Amino acid sequence: MPQFDRSFCDSLAALLAWRRDVRRFRRDPVDPATFARLLDLASLAPSVGNAQPWRFVTVDDPARRAAVIENFERCNHAALGSYSGERAALYAQLKLAGLKEAPVHLAVFADEDPAAGCGLGRATMPETLRYSAVLAVHTLWLAARAEGIGVGWVSILDPADVAAVLEVPETWALVAYLCIGHPEEEHLDPELERHGWQAREPRGTIALAR
Amino acid sequence: MPQFDRSFCDSLAALLAWRRDVRRFRRDPVDPATFARLLDLASLAPSVGNAQPWRFVTVDDPARRAAVIENFERCNHAALGSYSGERAALYAQLKLAGLKEAPVHLAVFADEDPAAGCGLGRATMPETLRYSAVLAVHTLWLAARAEGIGVGWVSILDPADVAAVLEVPETWALVAYLCIGHPEEEHLDPELERHGWQAREPRGTIALAR
Repeated sequence: MPQFDRSFCDSLAALLAWRRDVRRFRRDPVDPATFARLLDLASLAPSVGNAQPWRFVTVDDPARRAAVIENFERCNHAALGSYSGERAALYAQLKLAGLKEAPVHLAVFADEDPAAGCGLGRATMPETLRYSAVLAVHTLWLAARAEGIGVGWVSILDPADVAAVLEVPETWALVAYLCIGHPEEEHLDPELERHGWQAREPRGTIALAR
Repeated sequence: MPQFDRSFCDSLAALLAWRRDVRRFRRDPVDPATFARLLDLASLAPSVGNAQPWRFVTVDDPARRAAVIENFERCNHAALGSYSGERAALYAQLKLAGLKEAPVHLAVFADEDPAAGCGLGRATMPETLRYSAVLAVHTLWLAARAEGIGVGWVSILDPADVAAVLEVPETWALVAYLCIGHPEEEHLDPELERHGWQAREPRGTIALAR
């Protein structure tokens, strides 16, 4: 059984605090062996019924990347239109994705009808299959950051359109579209806090049901 | 900017491999200061638009705990009824929750209408609010395990019934119900693998869209 000392716990806390969603990437490639190791670690994530429903798709084809970028720009334009005044001006200045620069695009899907797991644990909360894929994303994210690699999660996308562009099986639902690469800069504070969109709350609300 | 050396990355990989979903708990309490620290770390999780939509509810009241256990037993009985033959016999022998022994019950909700974040990033994928709460759960899980504390995610529950029992606001959706405490035993292999339900797959499927 592994032992984790106080020094490790402190470093883990530092990693959690500094992790960041990265949107500013250098264009140099990610070492393929490192990337493979990150996917192996991601596959150690918890999953409902041990169903391991995460499905990873790397997107290298320039035409497919262009279609995803067009999808983002269309959705981001629509989102901008939902704000007005100062909020709209601020939104327009935010950098919300590094799709054009990131050397790696990784789409993460959840198979909503996996054979593995035999349905255990998901009869009443079938969304736990997608949650399992989220856990794999977060595992990859933390492991990548520990190795100095940045990850940015792009959610301003029409997920059905991404699935169509990537021609994945019908049972796969897009959970996350990730930009991965070496960060151009490092920050302890979230980008959206730094640019005045949304500050950290003191802590998640903690209620006590008595 | 923090530096994470190879030794830290190796320890992180060991943590990811050994994390486990724990269902066998000792009954001794979790140190309150440790638990508070874990919630603080969980609140460092990434979230869509920095909306920080996780809402933590500790469940100490015996009557509410009993209602959750009854909910689990009802759903688990229904799940058992969906299997037959050897699978049903195997399912009946699995220990799928530590609700009766775990000293801490923590329900994690996502506020589906948070003020924070001003809607950024979730127009096309509103489920990212719930995914953000999943990220907080995983952050807490890893931090807890590094400190030797076990976490078990119970998904065999009617989520609307849990929300009703805990009398949370209408915009809060149950994402996870966690048992937390000191583990009775430690394993490198998943419980469902050890008991013959579902083995680890060699690795998540990796497709390359070209």
